[in-house]
Amino acid sequence: MEEKIQKSIEIIEKYQKEIQLLSQTTALLEWDHQTYMPKNAHISRSEKVAFLKSLIHEKMTNKTFEDSVNFLKDKDLDERYKIMIKRLSKRISKQKSLPKEFVEELSIATSEGYNQWIKARQKKDFSIFAPALEKIIILKRKEAEYYGLPGHPYNSLLDDFEEGMTVERLKPLFEDLKKDLIILIKKIKSSSDYSNKTSSLTDNEFPKENQIELAKEVSIAMGLTESDSRLDFSEHPFSTRIGKSDVRITTNIRDNPMFSFSSTIHEAGHGLYELNLPDDELYTVLGDAPSYGLHESQSRFWELLIGLSKQFWEYYFPKFEENFNLKIDFEDWYKEINAIKTPLIRIESDEIHYCLHIIIRFELELALIEGSLEVKDLKEAWNKKYVEYIGILPPDDVKGVLQDVHWSEGYIGYFPSYAIGTIYASQIFNQIKKEDPKIEEDISNGNFEYLRQYLDKNIHKIGNKKNADDIIKEITGEGLNPKIFIDHLYEKFSGIYKI
Amino acid sequence: MEEKIQKSIEIIEKYQKEIQLLSQTTALLEWDHQTYMPKNAHISRSEKVAFLKSLIHEKMTNKTFEDSVNFLKDKDLDERYKIMIKRLSKRISKQKSLPKEFVEELSIATSEGYNQWIKARQKKDFSIFAPALEKIIILKRKEAEYYGLPGHPYNSLLDDFEEGMTVERLKPLFEDLKKDLIILIKKIKSSSDYSNKTSSLTDNEFPKENQIELAKEVSIAMGLTESDSRLDFSEHPFSTRIGKSDVRITTNIRDNPMFSFSSTIHEAGHGLYELNLPDDELYTVLGDAPSYGLHESQSRFWELLIGLSKQFWEYYFPKFEENFNLKIDFEDWYKEINAIKTPLIRIESDEIHYCLHIIIRFELELALIEGSLEVKDLKEAWNKKYVEYIGILPPDDVKGVLQDVHWSEGYIGYFPSYAIGTIYASQIFNQIKKEDPKIEEDISNGNFEYLRQYLDKNIHKIGNKKNADDIIKEITGEGLNPKIFIDHLYEKFSGIYKI
Repeated sequence: MEEKIQKSIEIIEKYQKEIQLLSQTTALLEWDHQTYMPKNAHISRSEKVAFLKSLIHEKMTNKTFEDSVNFLKDKDLDERYKIMIKRLSKRISKQKSLPKEFVEELSIATSEGYNQWIKARQKKDFSIFAPALEKIIILKRKEAEYYGLPGHPYNSLLDDFEEGMTVERLKPLFEDLKKDLIILIKKIKSSSDYSNKTSSLTDNEFPKENQIELAKEVSIAMGLTESDSRLDFSEHPFSTRIGKSDVRITTNIRDNPMFSFSSTIHEAGHGLYELNLPDDELYTVLGDAPSYGLHESQSRFWELLIGLSKQFWEYYFPKFEENFNLKIDFEDWYKEINAIKTPLIRIESDEIHYCLHIIIRFELELALIEGSLEVKDLKEAWNKKYVEYIGILPPDDVKGVLQDVHWSEGYIGYFPSYAIGTIYASQIFNQIKKEDPKIEEDISNGNFEYLRQYLDKNIHKIGNKKNADDIIKEITGEGLNPKIFIDHLYEKFSGIYKI
Repeated sequence: MEEKIQKSIEIIEKYQKEIQLLSQTTALLEWDHQTYMPKNAHISRSEKVAFLKSLIHEKMTNKTFEDSVNFLKDKDLDERYKIMIKRLSKRISKQKSLPKEFVEELSIATSEGYNQWIKARQKKDFSIFAPALEKIIILKRKEAEYYGLPGHPYNSLLDDFEEGMTVERLKPLFEDLKKDLIILIKKIKSSSDYSNKTSSLTDNEFPKENQIELAKEVSIAMGLTESDSRLDFSEHPFSTRIGKSDVRITTNIRDNPMFSFSSTIHEAGHGLYELNLPDDELYTVLGDAPSYGLHESQSRFWELLIGLSKQFWEYYFPKFEENFNLKIDFEDWYKEINAIKTPLIRIESDEIHYCLHIIIRFELELALIEGSLEVKDLKEAWNKKYVEYIGILPPDDVKGVLQDVHWSEGYIGYFPSYAIGTIYASQIFNQIKKEDPKIEEDISNGNFEYLRQYLDKNIHKIGNKKNADDIIKEITGEGLNPKIFIDHLYEKFSGIYKI
């Protein structure tokens, strides 16, 4: 028996290592695709990515692997192996619950979906994308049935991103959050010093080289050293890990220097998490983040709570002044980069509107999966919610229902993670401020050492050994709580607007 | 029967495709390692490369694959499949002839060899490297026995790089070449206008940006368009193919701008070959170059015959003048970049001495494999030959027997390819001049269209469907012929020295 246990452990470790090696290699293929690959190579690149993914799938669904995991399920193993077996067992049974033909059908549908989405955007016409999306929605309803988690069918989709999270818990929580946000926005918009004029930042000039230099400087200050990470450029900023001591983040240069600076901070937040994941779990299922929301909490933490704070800019504003010869004073700069506008596009949204964009998507996804909304009526439903919650009608579909890529790739259940991460971030920072009253002073001196160590110890180094909500509970004493986020917003924005 | 043939063809095509996809992915891992990888990632990177190589080996030695190849061997297939089966059959039987334990032993020995070579170079002391090299040589003698090709045992090693080439053919040919080169060098060194003074190029300043711009310009002019290729930077210049329309070359910036410019031309010559290999053989064994020598012929063709020719510089010298504000006139520049020095280092050698460096290595390798020379006496033998053939005693081991990495990695039989390629290159250009009397005029106008098309049609597009020597025979009417190379040298250098 002892011997068979030992043998089975060796098997599951071998398979996990091979899966991780292949996944990390795929990450490099994809990073290169977005950064340096010559443009005519895209077909040849897709073939390689598809082949590696098929190898990963083969390993994941290998009979010997599965048998070993099943054999170890009820054995008296130490805590680490117990949680490892639990994670593996769930992944394998999820994979197995989907018939092979279904997986192929979904793969074809999302590939077609992406192509149609691109075409629809070119013509600014949702109806071009609608038939492909309809197929995807039908398949995702089926997928939810196959998984068959308890409660709302959407739970089965949400679980891929936020293990253990449910509609039953999230829906009322988002409902309250929505009301609170709408009230706050109303207060701001009716305050005497509110203005919806467009940014005055672009009156200045922001040379590319200086933007790059500042982006590099801040990512290094956050802890992404050059010997373990890189900063490159891509159409859409992203972060990825290729292996131990090999984290890559990207940014992009726009007229407004806050785009490169802020997206670098966001991606560096993700990157720091990836860099600090436990080394001894590099090749196991315990070496990843437990949820998309917790991952997003790290990027949003740095982007919003730190990178848009007054203390942070006390340190960085002089650097911006020096680099860009700014024609704006500190207070105006701080107000400008935190200004509440009426935003059409989620990824360009201010700190307050952002979660409303997410809640709109969540509500629409729920309705689509329940079947109470059909794809043919999606555009109308989208526009109605934008008018109702945000007060603006999208002038065209690209600025409306076609703005995000997620649905076209079959990601339903992903959007809530963005809001969950944003809320977690404020909860974490709230706790840090309690534990270290000197933290804001540190930040205003450009000293992030305490933050880095805190996040490393309490989140990064745990990897996937605990669930996201448990990790947050251990830090703050409670699970997901949007009230803390709302409190943060009131505290911050009462310093910007007369509310 | 028909059905089984069809089935077997499908199997061999599937395996070849998977092997190629994995090899191309490995090429990206290695390219990234040399160009952009954060330095602390090297261990994690080596694990990924080793894993992918083990997958390739598994596929290569897979029983189903082997059985299908064997089954198809005597079947009446078309010419393409016949040559494909021949190539596959040879590779598989070569792989199979080596016992698994031997392969592991060699892998350990070369890994140790490389480490000891690095250490020995740091201390400038060959004796640190000698024990590891001795092990490698003993194993390579064994490998030659396992392969057991007819004739000299070295043939079995040479065959990995130059299929079909033999010591019996190469030795007398190199013997003649050596004599001819030594006579020519003597004539030059005793000519009234010979001078061994160091380069005057470094009197000028060569800003990095301008070097990069010129390197990019020349590689694009040669045919490496930006939509299908890239130019990056690495410690040692190299070229690689990641997939269709995805060729990468690298260079490095030194004080002397001819380093980046000339190495870019060299690597672009390799790159053009890779880019133009037959697309319909992208995933078969017929899609590669048939020999290292033929590959090298393409880099040496562009580097020496074109890139160091007077015609070429009639076009590029004005660009250099414009970029670098040169304090040298055209004739002096041309003579300077072609100057014959007394070179210690192979890769820094002039056009005439280069093959002597190779012949020294070839003679030493032969003696080591025959057993007429032992590793403990290698340094002495090396230095003796350098004094005898080149007239210079290496002042230390780094500038002597430790200068090349090849032996430490177990590459014995590789060096001849460099000389073979150099000779092939002059044979090819000799033929082109016969067929197109306007070619030198084209070159002096920076027009490489005819050259590119000629090489594409007569070499690149053939891939591995013919042996290297047969390809050269079809172009020039004869196989490897160093006399053409010697004729070229006399013609060229009589325009530079009074000989």
